[in-house]
Amino acid sequence: MRASISAKKNPSEGTIGPYTLEQFKELAIKFHGYPAPGILIGGAMVALAQSKLPQGTLFEALVETSKCLPDAVQLLTPCSTGNRWMKVLDLGRYAVTLYDKFTGEGWRVHIDEKRLEAWPEIRAWFLKLKPKKSQDTARLFQEIEEAGEGYLAVQPVQVNPMWLGKKETGNIAICPVCGEAYPAAHGAVCRGCADGEPFERSLRVL
Amino acid sequence: MRASISAKKNPSEGTIGPYTLEQFKELAIKFHGYPAPGILIGGAMVALAQSKLPQGTLFEALVETSKCLPDAVQLLTPCSTGNRWMKVLDLGRYAVTLYDKFTGEGWRVHIDEKRLEAWPEIRAWFLKLKPKKSQDTARLFQEIEEAGEGYLAVQPVQVNPMWLGKKETGNIAICPVCGEAYPAAHGAVCRGCADGEPFERSLRVL
Repeated sequence: MRASISAKKNPSEGTIGPYTLEQFKELAIKFHGYPAPGILIGGAMVALAQSKLPQGTLFEALVETSKCLPDAVQLLTPCSTGNRWMKVLDLGRYAVTLYDKFTGEGWRVHIDEKRLEAWPEIRAWFLKLKPKKSQDTARLFQEIEEAGEGYLAVQPVQVNPMWLGKKETGNIAICPVCGEAYPAAHGAVCRGCADGEPFERSLRVL
Repeated sequence: MRASISAKKNPSEGTIGPYTLEQFKELAIKFHGYPAPGILIGGAMVALAQSKLPQGTLFEALVETSKCLPDAVQLLTPCSTGNRWMKVLDLGRYAVTLYDKFTGEGWRVHIDEKRLEAWPEIRAWFLKLKPKKSQDTARLFQEIEEAGEGYLAVQPVQVNPMWLGKKETGNIAICPVCGEAYPAAHGAVCRGCADGEPFERSLRVL
């Protein structure tokens, strides 16, 4: 495995999808606030998954962590949180799957820890081997640029049917407690009133 | 209440935050795929909440639905899914709160169904009173433009402490089942292996 990876070493070196690394860093600063290593690495992951899909595939995205990686998906694909073509599951794994939205056939990319030996700073970042303040950021970025997709594993997957298709909201009801609209299917009152709200409200409504 | 709303009628008519409605529609097409009514309405909601925060406030966002509204937040504020300054809760309510990330003091904006009488097409969209194909899209957009923030309610809230501050991931472990890295705090195996994965994997790993 390692040999075949080395043979096609760094096909994407210095680029992320249609962007140079510098262009992508600029996009990351604008959208994400800063050019986090996780966004750059995520960008390489998304670009690799996307390269495996047949041209013209209408695809959706499944991300297994909420950290950084979702923003790489949102920067490089039409999938977003609000259009719900991107789903974020809190599985805690740094992995992304892009899949045909009709058939569920897709490609999952994850960071293969066993392939990280050649890039100690990426490895230290990924496995949190040192505190952030001891991180050698310049070297980390250099390794990310040099490594390309050398430490990424990509695997065909078949996404389960429950993730395919659009969930319809159904009828809308007015919650008898808060007076706001919500999906009737949620029950007799809205979830905010049933399960507790994430805030205390002032009595003042403008 | 209604009188005071009418008195300051449509202060934001034709603009969404720093953008004209047309500019914002362009952004929505690029990021969200299409200029969904929910994005334009969401834009007015986010802009209203943001206008209530003292200048220079470092804020985060709490969105109570995954439909459209999160993308308005991502287009108009520094908050995103991947930088985790935006949290999306599936409460089913079309509402957004922007709050001081340190104190939790913020402003929640929701659509007040009782104020929607003057805008029947927005009301029909919001309460799903007619099927999408009977929706008069031109009129809907016109009403959104004319209504400004006239049907939006805004309320001071105090976000609960559990939503403030950054959750640290802690140590990273390697899952003995899938061999991938995950937060050790999740348990003896990763959540994907413990709770079931959203896909079937091929045995082929590239």
